[in-house]
Amino acid sequence: MSTIKDISARLFRVPLAEVLEDAKHGAHTHFELVTVTVTTEGGRSGTGYTYTGGKGGHAILAMVEHDLAPFLLGQDAREIEALHDAMLWHVHYVGRGGIASFAISAIDIALWDLRGRENALPLWRMAGGAARECRAYRGGIDLGYSLEKLLASVRSYLDEGFDGVKIKVGRPTLAEDVARAAAVRDLIGPDIAFMVDANYSFTVDQAIAAARAFAPLDILWFEEPIVPDDYFGYARIAEETYVPLAMGENLHTLDEFSLALENSQLSYIQPDASNCGGITGWLRVAELARRNGLPVCSHGMQELHVSLVSAQENAGLIEVHSFPIDAYTKRPLVMKNALAQAPDTPGTGVEFDWEKLGPHEARR
Amino acid sequence: MSTIKDISARLFRVPLAEVLEDAKHGAHTHFELVTVTVTTEGGRSGTGYTYTGGKGGHAILAMVEHDLAPFLLGQDAREIEALHDAMLWHVHYVGRGGIASFAISAIDIALWDLRGRENALPLWRMAGGAARECRAYRGGIDLGYSLEKLLASVRSYLDEGFDGVKIKVGRPTLAEDVARAAAVRDLIGPDIAFMVDANYSFTVDQAIAAARAFAPLDILWFEEPIVPDDYFGYARIAEETYVPLAMGENLHTLDEFSLALENSQLSYIQPDASNCGGITGWLRVAELARRNGLPVCSHGMQELHVSLVSAQENAGLIEVHSFPIDAYTKRPLVMKNALAQAPDTPGTGVEFDWEKLGPHEARR
Ligand SMILES: [Mg+2]
Ligand SMILES: [Mg+2]
Repeated sequence: MSTIKDISARLFRVPLAEVLEDAKHGAHTHFELVTVTVTTEGGRSGTGYTYTGGKGGHAILAMVEHDLAPFLLGQDAREIEALHDAMLWHVHYVGRGGIASFAISAIDIALWDLRGRENALPLWRMAGGAARECRAYRGGIDLGYSLEKLLASVRSYLDEGFDGVKIKVGRPTLAEDVARAAAVRDLIGPDIAFMVDANYSFTVDQAIAAARAFAPLDILWFEEPIVPDDYFGYARIAEETYVPLAMGENLHTLDEFSLALENSQLSYIQPDASNCGGITGWLRVAELARRNGLPVCSHGMQELHVSLVSAQENAGLIEVHSFPIDAYTKRPLVMKNALAQAPDTPGTGVEFDWEKLGPHEARR
Repeated sequence: MSTIKDISARLFRVPLAEVLEDAKHGAHTHFELVTVTVTTEGGRSGTGYTYTGGKGGHAILAMVEHDLAPFLLGQDAREIEALHDAMLWHVHYVGRGGIASFAISAIDIALWDLRGRENALPLWRMAGGAARECRAYRGGIDLGYSLEKLLASVRSYLDEGFDGVKIKVGRPTLAEDVARAAAVRDLIGPDIAFMVDANYSFTVDQAIAAARAFAPLDILWFEEPIVPDDYFGYARIAEETYVPLAMGENLHTLDEFSLALENSQLSYIQPDASNCGGITGWLRVAELARRNGLPVCSHGMQELHVSLVSAQENAGLIEVHSFPIDAYTKRPLVMKNALAQAPDTPGTGVEFDWEKLGPHEARR
């Protein structure tokens, strides 16, 4: 027994270096970071976190503080999977996705950090141990960039050592999207992995036309062409075009992932541990993907997902996202020979630089 | 233009007269009520609300205050449907159900209240106008009751003038559930509508066995036999048993309702305006149900749903729920000849008794 004695949460609103745009979320000026630190009677602590594109942080904080923390105090921190399921049921009526998924994720990650520290195990070992490194690609929130700036930013990704890049699509016309994507493929040559991400700005018919237009550019996947909820629409696009499809960053429950994996004919699945139930939720999705023969990738939070993806037999690629959470940790993402390297320290290996974060703490 | 000038929200934690139990949410000791009042530059106000079984209220309040209110200030209160969709997109990344659905619902209802007051129209007219009264049944959260107490409470519903009753099922054995249900049917005779509600405590196979056992008791519907997310599981139960199925109180988005209406072979749909996007969301579900040939019912919040259900051509029955929100309004539900009567005053017709609610306001 390792009794939970305290749970404390903090909300940070961290400004981005520039305003970033995608097809559906408008202008991003900040990301929100909610950290949760769980402390046991024995005096050991673990820290977890979740993030948003700038909205919902206060609600996540409120759910942690008012609904989940009181429920967890006095319980055994070692029973992570049981606590995970108990939290899902505790807030079920207002949960099943949404804010609850983010709040539970942050707590779940804290409990895994604690587990690793107690057992002197790094996350990549606890999560499966298949490897300590994985493929990675750099994704930009670059829909608002001019073509010139887009190409410069893609070039900077290559300079940083990445061998995979992803750009946003969803400009006013398909012709413009295709021209931008073609220019990127031209720049990077045939050997760099290349993906496009529409943030569900297309209808099914538009997505079919777009997929056909992108196909000659040898894209590794077409991400979120349509709304994540239209599971059967994804299947129609896949059947009509044979372009590999990817999604998952907007799915929060195992039921949603099951619907997608069973019906959407995806080629890649991209769960995000910050919003699908933390490490417990992410590992369940990875297992479901393995049973369905799919590689498991990730969305955002590269400093944590590097350990989770590396550890899987069915490892895909991690996304290195434009929200630089890792810049506010003691170990920003480490790349070697174009492969992302998982930390080998006990726990999640994500230790925040509280001094650097401090000025961005949100007022209550 | 009717510019939104102020949005203020309050959270109340209202104790129940006794502790109530169902199969999946454990003991209910309180319900939470979040009220939202929208005021325009012209000085007119409308009030909406949502409720929970005791968790999530603070998160709803936080989302209204930090994410939605700032977004709505200065916008035109008359453009309800456009604002509804804009709110869904505004918090999409942390939304698609969960807390966001509750927060948006409360605001949406406030805007409809305002619309009714500005145009001197009662809700039953704004929502379709088919009728001003509808069928109703009394539902108990009575799984924890002894058989004796269960029968006494069902008798009290008949004494109050209801011609329909619903009980909870999901006791440790099916035999016990069937014995309790049989005793209720015995008590009420053949002419009273009778439903059972499992709060998704069964597996598909258990639900099939249970449906077969309940069938001889002439139940109008079997509610939430399994988790709301298992759309195809519902269809299997329906195909195997022909017992009419109902659900909807746990569906929050139009996509979820579409999945259920297209795949689950339901006989009744039960949207709750407090968690499916308010009146705008509820009316969209009612329209979808009409296109699929289903009667539209409701869950909870009888003082508001009486107007919405009465107004539909495909009206089903409203549930008169054990959370007595209407007891904290100036017009608790009015029954006449076993039919629930919609208020005929401008707006939603739900005016809170703030003095009665005051002592239950939650501390921040
Ligand atoms: Mg994406
Ligand atoms: Mg029910």
